[in-house]
Amino acid sequence: MSKLDTLIQDLVVANRILAKEDVVDAYGHVSVRHPDNPKHFFISRSLAPELIEKADIVELGLDGQPVRDDKRALYLERFIHGAIYEARPDVTAVVHAHAEDILPFGIAKATKLRPVIHSGSFIGTNVPVWDIADKFGATDLLVRNVDHGRDLAKCLAGNSVVLMRGHGFASAARSLIEVVRLSVYLPRNARALMRAKQLGGKIKPLSKGEIDARNRGYSPYSTETWRAWEYWANKAGCGHMVTRPDGGHVHKPKS
Amino acid sequence: MSKLDTLIQDLVVANRILAKEDVVDAYGHVSVRHPDNPKHFFISRSLAPELIEKADIVELGLDGQPVRDDKRALYLERFIHGAIYEARPDVTAVVHAHAEDILPFGIAKATKLRPVIHSGSFIGTNVPVWDIADKFGATDLLVRNVDHGRDLAKCLAGNSVVLMRGHGFASAARSLIEVVRLSVYLPRNARALMRAKQLGGKIKPLSKGEIDARNRGYSPYSTETWRAWEYWANKAGCGHMVTRPDGGHVHKPKS
Amino acid sequence: MSKLDTLIQDLVVANRILAKEDVVDAYGHVSVRHPDNPKHFFISRSLAPELIEKADIVELGLDGQPVRDDKRALYLERFIHGAIYEARPDVTAVVHAHAEDILPFGIAKATKLRPVIHSGSFIGTNVPVWDIADKFGATDLLVRNVDHGRDLAKCLAGNSVVLMRGHGFASAARSLIEVVRLSVYLPRNARALMRAKQLGGKIKPLSKGEIDARNRGYSPYSTETWRAWEYWANKAGCGHMVTRPDGGHVHKPKS
Amino acid sequence: MSKLDTLIQDLVVANRILAKEDVVDAYGHVSVRHPDNPKHFFISRSLAPELIEKADIVELGLDGQPVRDDKRALYLERFIHGAIYEARPDVTAVVHAHAEDILPFGIAKATKLRPVIHSGSFIGTNVPVWDIADKFGATDLLVRNVDHGRDLAKCLAGNSVVLMRGHGFASAARSLIEVVRLSVYLPRNARALMRAKQLGGKIKPLSKGEIDARNRGYSPYSTETWRAWEYWANKAGCGHMVTRPDGGHVHKPKS
Repeated sequence: MSKLDTLIQDLVVANRILAKEDVVDAYGHVSVRHPDNPKHFFISRSLAPELIEKADIVELGLDGQPVRDDKRALYLERFIHGAIYEARPDVTAVVHAHAEDILPFGIAKATKLRPVIHSGSFIGTNVPVWDIADKFGATDLLVRNVDHGRDLAKCLAGNSVVLMRGHGFASAARSLIEVVRLSVYLPRNARALMRAKQLGGKIKPLSKGEIDARNRGYSPYSTETWRAWEYWANKAGCGHMVTRPDGGHVHKPKS
Repeated sequence: MSKLDTLIQDLVVANRILAKEDVVDAYGHVSVRHPDNPKHFFISRSLAPELIEKADIVELGLDGQPVRDDKRALYLERFIHGAIYEARPDVTAVVHAHAEDILPFGIAKATKLRPVIHSGSFIGTNVPVWDIADKFGATDLLVRNVDHGRDLAKCLAGNSVVLMRGHGFASAARSLIEVVRLSVYLPRNARALMRAKQLGGKIKPLSKGEIDARNRGYSPYSTETWRAWEYWANKAGCGHMVTRPDGGHVHKPKS
Repeated sequence: MSKLDTLIQDLVVANRILAKEDVVDAYGHVSVRHPDNPKHFFISRSLAPELIEKADIVELGLDGQPVRDDKRALYLERFIHGAIYEARPDVTAVVHAHAEDILPFGIAKATKLRPVIHSGSFIGTNVPVWDIADKFGATDLLVRNVDHGRDLAKCLAGNSVVLMRGHGFASAARSLIEVVRLSVYLPRNARALMRAKQLGGKIKPLSKGEIDARNRGYSPYSTETWRAWEYWANKAGCGHMVTRPDGGHVHKPKS
Repeated sequence: MSKLDTLIQDLVVANRILAKEDVVDAYGHVSVRHPDNPKHFFISRSLAPELIEKADIVELGLDGQPVRDDKRALYLERFIHGAIYEARPDVTAVVHAHAEDILPFGIAKATKLRPVIHSGSFIGTNVPVWDIADKFGATDLLVRNVDHGRDLAKCLAGNSVVLMRGHGFASAARSLIEVVRLSVYLPRNARALMRAKQLGGKIKPLSKGEIDARNRGYSPYSTETWRAWEYWANKAGCGHMVTRPDGGHVHKPKS
């Protein structure tokens, strides 16, 4: 397979993992930037992530318009992706989803989402909450155009995750593996914080120094990161689709 | 297939989806109004929704009595459906269920159920709570006759959902797809609100303007709505039974 | 099949249902009184309920001793069953289990478990909490002998369910179907009450009159009860083992 | 099979059980001490526990270094195991995991984790919380070397479980069966305590006398313990790999 074929297959695997791990359901999407053209990105046509195959992937410009003539329906909210790629040259992959357990943090004002467990460290020290109503008034809450997308990207700023009030979140990272890992552990971190609050007393989150130390120790194709990707792909029934860029051994699921 | 055959098959799919999504278990039911005779509706004979096939569907009048001579046992609470169709000419499909996470809102008095997430917007600005005891005293809580049904429909009034104290809910919509979507996201919205309350502080629900904007933007056979129906049907193992009224492409589940 | 064979097969089905519905795991058991000899009852040898087959069922006396010479290991806590059958001639079937969501009500003192949803009505107006320490001091909390069992049965008294502090519950009913239904909906009722408490404000439980009305309307082989039994058996993969005492139609699971 | 082969197969089964019971996901590990050489222990190479086979098991010294020349990547945090075996001659098996529902007790200061249900008794009267920051400052929270491991083992002291702030737990026991059982019931005990706290009022934990009585009554190959092991192995799809050291009957899963 060519490098591009491999990337598109990885994107299919990412979709299936996010579906299996309950980050997305019929809604939500993941994209990856074109490795040779930073003004293009890949994302599925409008389809539930669990059902996506390679032929469903389309190539869009940062304005959310298809690069090739294509009549297939697209995700309404693809502008989230384009706007984040536009504002953040360091970002290679984006997820938008409605994972249930992050929703309360976009609705209630009293508790800020922040990392309290080590696997949640990648959400970073600051998780802003974007309220579409602040700038656009009474909408249907969807990111339906470039203006919406840019306002969201502005709120995300240099962070890894932005919550969307009454709607969901968008996350951004340097690679597909990273954005999937971030998005899977985000709701787990949210649950740990919610339950810690119910136990009461002072809560000790990760310190700035700990978050930085974890970022320093992280590499997308390390043994540890790969272990999770391989595990999730097997759980999602697509372990056979996993390819390892460094040519290393790929685990086969047992019968 | 004739239009009616297709509708009945859709009703089977709706039953299976509601079972798979934990909206119903052995109990709970979904019905659809006869497209050519507004005084009749289709619903299964007394059977757990997960097990229903086309042959199990019966045709009832608004008084809950079978149109044809049929000896098979019927749902005790079919009067919910008849009474709502009678009171609400705009309604084409009805669900009654006991989805676990809406139950607390019918028991505790302090917190009103309202939309806090965009996918919950279709429950509308007002979700009344019906208490059968108010009019009928100490019953077994079941809607056992036309009088019970009419009192419930009166409490539902022009809304989309009515909670039933210590029992469950009834929901009403313009189409099967809409009533299923509404009923699946209702418990999710309930969970988001419960957890937001635990986080504390002010809670920001959807505004009237946002709810209206979402209703304006909604159409039962839009790409987005269809995406969910197709996804849920595949999850419930009946993707092969899905037919699209506009003749569009139907996704086949992968092997 | 003889009446006794049918009953033993029903007991196997009951075991599998309770396992599938997360009422029991490796631990917990269900028994049924011998229909022709009220001083004997049937229960599995020591085995996880999910794995039980007809050959695993043994016949015990009310003292928990095997009627026939049998070298197979028995449940340590079989005395729960014998003692309840001894004290309650009206009881035909007993469950003991550790269903997770009832545990908090046996630990915390402030909230009494009571029916708040219609499907929970069969737990009755009073659910006593038995603390083995009150009479027996520092034990391993297991009901290891006839004395323990009789003290538990005394606390159960004329009720349908007794919670066991830091341990689980025992439930008793007139038939296998009833005791299974009661035991499946008990944790659901517990969850509804816990969550209603979190929502705050006054909680409205079922009234005495409502509980009585539900008991009056209940019959173990009614269409409604049977619907649940058939549904649960299919879910647990043993729909083919279901036999209907009145010779009525048995639903076959679909392929 | 030799005694050692059997032990290694048991270790594979333990991995699969912990994965199926949601104690571990892609991360977390279980080890067992070499029966003939207390300065060595067995653990998998770096791989998700669900995917582990016998060939993946490696033999390490207490310093975490492989005994044989082996190029395969190892778990970063294998030092947890070595340090506990070093400090605790009574310990034969160790688990490290991030089971979600224990996390809040390592974050919030107000509520101490302690046994409130009989199956949680094996966590003992005292569950210390280790904070890596106390001695090592701003790290990535991982137990990356012998010093980290020894500090953790010192905090564990003579107890059975130590919580790791913002990270997970380590548990230690006399046998594989015991450490698995302890680790499976630990999160359940945590949930029961969290929910009891929400119900309010005084909470009654197990007394010291009850914990002691349960420890006295416990034996790793008793019928009761074996019943759980057999059940979990069947659930995890590896019932066929279960061997019973005393040569007793092994249950075959039904088709």
